[in-house]
Amino acid sequence: MSEVKSDVFADKELVVGGRVLKSRLVVGTGKYANYEQMQDALEVSGADVITVAVRRERLLDSEGRSLLDFIDTDKYTILPNTAGCFTAEDAVRVSRLGREILDQIDNPGKDWVKLEVLNDKKTLLPDPVGTLEALKELVADGFKVLCYTSDDPVMACKLKEAGAASVMPAGSPIGSGQGVLNQNNIRIILELLKEGDEDYPVIVDAGVGTASDVMIAMELGADGVLLNTGIAHAKEPIRMARAMKMALQGGRDAYLAGRIDKKLYATASSPWSGVISYIPGE
Amino acid sequence: MSEVKSDVFADKELVVGGRVLKSRLVVGTGKYANYEQMQDALEVSGADVITVAVRRERLLDSEGRSLLDFIDTDKYTILPNTAGCFTAEDAVRVSRLGREILDQIDNPGKDWVKLEVLNDKKTLLPDPVGTLEALKELVADGFKVLCYTSDDPVMACKLKEAGAASVMPAGSPIGSGQGVLNQNNIRIILELLKEGDEDYPVIVDAGVGTASDVMIAMELGADGVLLNTGIAHAKEPIRMARAMKMALQGGRDAYLAGRIDKKLYATASSPWSGVISYIPGE
Amino acid sequence: MSEVKSDVFADKELVVGGRVLKSRLVVGTGKYANYEQMQDALEVSGADVITVAVRRERLLDSEGRSLLDFIDTDKYTILPNTAGCFTAEDAVRVSRLGREILDQIDNPGKDWVKLEVLNDKKTLLPDPVGTLEALKELVADGFKVLCYTSDDPVMACKLKEAGAASVMPAGSPIGSGQGVLNQNNIRIILELLKEGDEDYPVIVDAGVGTASDVMIAMELGADGVLLNTGIAHAKEPIRMARAMKMALQGGRDAYLAGRIDKKLYATASSPWSGVISYIPGE
Amino acid sequence: MSEVKSDVFADKELVVGGRVLKSRLVVGTGKYANYEQMQDALEVSGADVITVAVRRERLLDSEGRSLLDFIDTDKYTILPNTAGCFTAEDAVRVSRLGREILDQIDNPGKDWVKLEVLNDKKTLLPDPVGTLEALKELVADGFKVLCYTSDDPVMACKLKEAGAASVMPAGSPIGSGQGVLNQNNIRIILELLKEGDEDYPVIVDAGVGTASDVMIAMELGADGVLLNTGIAHAKEPIRMARAMKMALQGGRDAYLAGRIDKKLYATASSPWSGVISYIPGE
Repeated sequence: MSEVKSDVFADKELVVGGRVLKSRLVVGTGKYANYEQMQDALEVSGADVITVAVRRERLLDSEGRSLLDFIDTDKYTILPNTAGCFTAEDAVRVSRLGREILDQIDNPGKDWVKLEVLNDKKTLLPDPVGTLEALKELVADGFKVLCYTSDDPVMACKLKEAGAASVMPAGSPIGSGQGVLNQNNIRIILELLKEGDEDYPVIVDAGVGTASDVMIAMELGADGVLLNTGIAHAKEPIRMARAMKMALQGGRDAYLAGRIDKKLYATASSPWSGVISYIPGE
Repeated sequence: MSEVKSDVFADKELVVGGRVLKSRLVVGTGKYANYEQMQDALEVSGADVITVAVRRERLLDSEGRSLLDFIDTDKYTILPNTAGCFTAEDAVRVSRLGREILDQIDNPGKDWVKLEVLNDKKTLLPDPVGTLEALKELVADGFKVLCYTSDDPVMACKLKEAGAASVMPAGSPIGSGQGVLNQNNIRIILELLKEGDEDYPVIVDAGVGTASDVMIAMELGADGVLLNTGIAHAKEPIRMARAMKMALQGGRDAYLAGRIDKKLYATASSPWSGVISYIPGE
Repeated sequence: MSEVKSDVFADKELVVGGRVLKSRLVVGTGKYANYEQMQDALEVSGADVITVAVRRERLLDSEGRSLLDFIDTDKYTILPNTAGCFTAEDAVRVSRLGREILDQIDNPGKDWVKLEVLNDKKTLLPDPVGTLEALKELVADGFKVLCYTSDDPVMACKLKEAGAASVMPAGSPIGSGQGVLNQNNIRIILELLKEGDEDYPVIVDAGVGTASDVMIAMELGADGVLLNTGIAHAKEPIRMARAMKMALQGGRDAYLAGRIDKKLYATASSPWSGVISYIPGE
Repeated sequence: MSEVKSDVFADKELVVGGRVLKSRLVVGTGKYANYEQMQDALEVSGADVITVAVRRERLLDSEGRSLLDFIDTDKYTILPNTAGCFTAEDAVRVSRLGREILDQIDNPGKDWVKLEVLNDKKTLLPDPVGTLEALKELVADGFKVLCYTSDDPVMACKLKEAGAASVMPAGSPIGSGQGVLNQNNIRIILELLKEGDEDYPVIVDAGVGTASDVMIAMELGADGVLLNTGIAHAKEPIRMARAMKMALQGGRDAYLAGRIDKKLYATASSPWSGVISYIPGE
């Protein structure tokens, strides 16, 4: 039996804001039943970057204990995020607070931030105007900004132009569990943002309900996926964490491997002119 | 940091026709560029059961070499299949030939067969009438029959009643690469065949184009997936074999882990009465 | 302002079993709140052929009144159907009973029947084996048989070969309201059954939930649609009857008019090789 | 036989910017093979409001003839649009030019405009920032603005707040022919914009490829649809115009009529908790 040569699995590293991510899966730390469950899920997910909401009411639990005391900050790079911010001003303030906290514990994540400026508490959809405003201020202040946004390709371009280290389009609304609702938009975003700049990182963020949602995002050519609720609120979070890890890796492999074409049936002779639908790896 | 307890990943074994499958992924051996590539893909896929077309023109290559000489038959259980048979009579004859061949090499797969009775060379769609006829004859002859069929739930029931060791509904036509086209039918098949018999094995066979197709089938609750072209004709078959392995395992995990519900947006209050769509793990 | 020439709307007639259908929409007569509502819905739907369940318990209401007394049998051609039959034998018997009844009232529908042989009361899915058996007997007995079946293309071919005047594939299960779940199968059925016989009538039957389901079936190239529950159980059946009529006519027009191709965006230059999805009118 | 009472078809009028639209279908005037074809298509579509690109190079043909000379401006209300504008400044200038032209011919459309500010010539996607800027200026200048935008619900809200007479979300990119790609977003837009203001008009604009795309938009609860290429570039534009008319009316009826629920099969007992998908009329 032949030995399979490992170079058939070669892949380039994902670099975001000058930092190499060993895993292309970034996971959140909220919504778990308890800290031990969170710790196990993080471990099983294989993530080396985890994201933490910096707002005080999210960082401290009801007993005043800080989430950070339950995270091995030597092992994980913390990506502070501005979840719960509804104005540019608030998001900028929270970003700076995150930098201070991570500076104190000397975590490498101290100069970056995942920017979320949400429009309202009902839909938790991103506010494009507030996001662009906060992004510009944070970039000027030296932050590497990973920027959450809708799947609108034009806003994605504007955010890249304004200096986002990564654009993070939503597959579907936060917490909706609907996966990638509009593959067409994700494909256009990938085409526009990577034109002449193929290593520019696009990370799908939000909306993941189950593992195949992650896999489909990766098969589309996304560089990574960020998720939280899909693991934390599954009936068995630890097992779902493993599913997400495999979906990420398998989806990346499938994208690079180049899938077969679709046909009406195996021997269908005529192509279907002008018809599109996504072909990962094409 | 806590140690993750392995029992959170507990799963029952997949048993088909009295035989335990260590991997829930069954892969074919045809359509590879060469035997070495096939060997590597089999190895990487993690499969312990592989399927081999018994018809002479498929078993021997242009130089008269037998495919079986390139397979480690101590390592793999061979599942003979009747690919290329268009009548019940032919399929029964080929099944018996497969039994003879495996008997000679004493492979444990000698008493089972994956039955395919195809309707025509154009569509390669299964012939339900011929399939049922051949199944009855093979069951009477002592075979454990894994029975390929369309996704018609009623035919699936008839095949189970006639003694199929496993029913193998097609996700989409052989070689079409379209994945699971009708999730509703696969769900009904799973409901009907597992009613009061939850361990009855249903294996989705045919139509897989890329890894997420496998994952979706597993998230629906299928017990396993059989595929060939999706790996063999990918641009990089070895890498795609790894993607399929991870899709299988991740999809099984996601099914068992119980995904979150879908919502219009995170805080949407009203349920959507009477609306369905598949919820793996529910 | 120019006068629009009516010949731009030219279309051929739909002929089924030697009979011209003025409307391509065939509607059922069951499940209405009362006979007056049924009468109005039939009128508004524009149908000239309506289908009636012949089984005694369906033909007579709780007061013993016959459904036929509430239908203008001079205006409508009755298509008797075998709804509620679960064996070939029963379906044949009911077909003959329907012929007798229509013969007495001298309705032109007397020599045809819509054949349904269902598998079970739970799913109401068609039994392919029983259907084929009953079809052969009815054809030998001189009936023009419109044959309800699943969307399995091979069974559709077998039913045509056995003499069905029209094959009527299900879009989705009876009463499910899910529309055409597997467009790929409907397309293959249309390709196979119309090969060298383009006027062979294929009528999509069952599963219609709303008007766009009808329109999509017609855009795929179906010759007509049969439905009942989608109108009868809508909140406002009369209004829904009008919606269905317009969906039918608009869908037929759209199919004949030849739709534009799909693109990622308007100026996308590259075709997406080997990708399919249905293009009505192509 | 009962007479069907016409009040079962009662509907309220669509009012946009203080003007009643008799038809809920608004059609464009570009891309036709010749003016006669355009005239016939307009006539058959049933539209009473038609939209005209005001930019000089679009208004005049190669012989210097004005499009307006071929339109019966006593019959149609002209909705001037800013197609081809890529900055807010340009769109405002073109809007004013449109007002002057319509003022000269005393067409009732003189005080309204369909605002498009596009991002680039490649994708023709709308620029949200430029659109909002132009909208504010036009509203201040007394225009009734029908505002084209992406399907981002937050931008839709901002446009309504800024005074848009109607928000017109894109189903998919201009000229893509992909219909409504993200029904979830259209539903959220309808929910947010009509909350406490149920008559606020939301008109789906762009992306229509065939008639069922129009019908689906209307079944979702949209107040109207605007389209151009789907008719003008069909193989038979006049017939497609009729298809679109019927799709619009049938879709409106289906929405108001209240469709049946979806089920796995007719007698499926268990609801599928927390699962959503659109139910027109619910």
